[in-house]
Amino acid sequence: MNAPQRKRGLEEHLRAAEAREDWPTLPVQLVLDNVRSLHNVGSLFRTADGFGIRKLQLLGFTPAPPRPEIAKTAIGAEEVVPFETIEDPAVAMLRLEAEGYQLVALEQTTASESIYDFDFRFPVAIVLGHETDGVSDEVLARVEATVEIPMLGVKHSHNVAVAGGIVLGEVYRRWVRSQGASPREACAP
Amino acid sequence: MNAPQRKRGLEEHLRAAEAREDWPTLPVQLVLDNVRSLHNVGSLFRTADGFGIRKLQLLGFTPAPPRPEIAKTAIGAEEVVPFETIEDPAVAMLRLEAEGYQLVALEQTTASESIYDFDFRFPVAIVLGHETDGVSDEVLARVEATVEIPMLGVKHSHNVAVAGGIVLGEVYRRWVRSQGASPREACAP
Repeated sequence: MNAPQRKRGLEEHLRAAEAREDWPTLPVQLVLDNVRSLHNVGSLFRTADGFGIRKLQLLGFTPAPPRPEIAKTAIGAEEVVPFETIEDPAVAMLRLEAEGYQLVALEQTTASESIYDFDFRFPVAIVLGHETDGVSDEVLARVEATVEIPMLGVKHSHNVAVAGGIVLGEVYRRWVRSQGASPREACAP
Repeated sequence: MNAPQRKRGLEEHLRAAEAREDWPTLPVQLVLDNVRSLHNVGSLFRTADGFGIRKLQLLGFTPAPPRPEIAKTAIGAEEVVPFETIEDPAVAMLRLEAEGYQLVALEQTTASESIYDFDFRFPVAIVLGHETDGVSDEVLARVEATVEIPMLGVKHSHNVAVAGGIVLGEVYRRWVRSQGASPREACAP
């Protein structure tokens, strides 16, 4: 129905990635608060790389690289995305706050606002919690706000790795818009 | 730092889900073109439920429920999201086109536009392709356009299930905006 569209190859991507090396990173950190599954953690490393965020904070018992099961879903991203392992969540949150980060947790609470409505400020730290228990009370007590992804079906929540992708996509879009650039302009290699 | 935010319970979600039963679904279908992994297919069922889309089309060798490995990541969504299994991709694409769907593939091509720039029209059918080979040439030849998620890191692509979440999030946002409602208004139970 149209002119055929040729798939871009890996070589083109690598050239573009090289050109991006000096770019500023997205002023965003992802905080994993007791995320249990190695596969989810690995997947979040891959997504974090894709959106060019600054760092992953691995809190509590969240597993850290190097682990084969993390590498399986991160497929190399675990070697390039900066991360810190901090067992005490209070230390991590106080440090991020001191560095000027807006602290936001993805959690369904009595006060949470849709990610599509919430006023994200940069730099922002987004907290994702445990697969079934969500964000810990200790961390919830330290965030400025909670946000949620509107759930239109019968299930209560998204998988945490997918949810991370959804919220990072929206935060990326907001950041680009805040720069006065169209996403296309901001991302062209 | 703020008034404590109480987590909402499952009961509240179930009440809200019940109130949503008569709502129109999101005028979106997801087309899985030779997605290989059972876990990815299951995860996409869960995401499809979360955004309340109309249907999943399972093309080629994409596995279909019921399968224990699909249920493992779909956790019940595979029983509620409508799906069709169509081996011949041409049949599926022609049928969607006849039903008025805009046909869009998530694929990095020489012509692809960012999902944050592209002009989605509703109803829209979004094609996701094979984990490593992407969307098949046969399907690419039949779409109106290709879109891509801007990649800012070193990796070439997102996991297909995460990518599905990212693109559905953006399509959901556009649809809500096209209805003249804020996402909050459109999603309140």
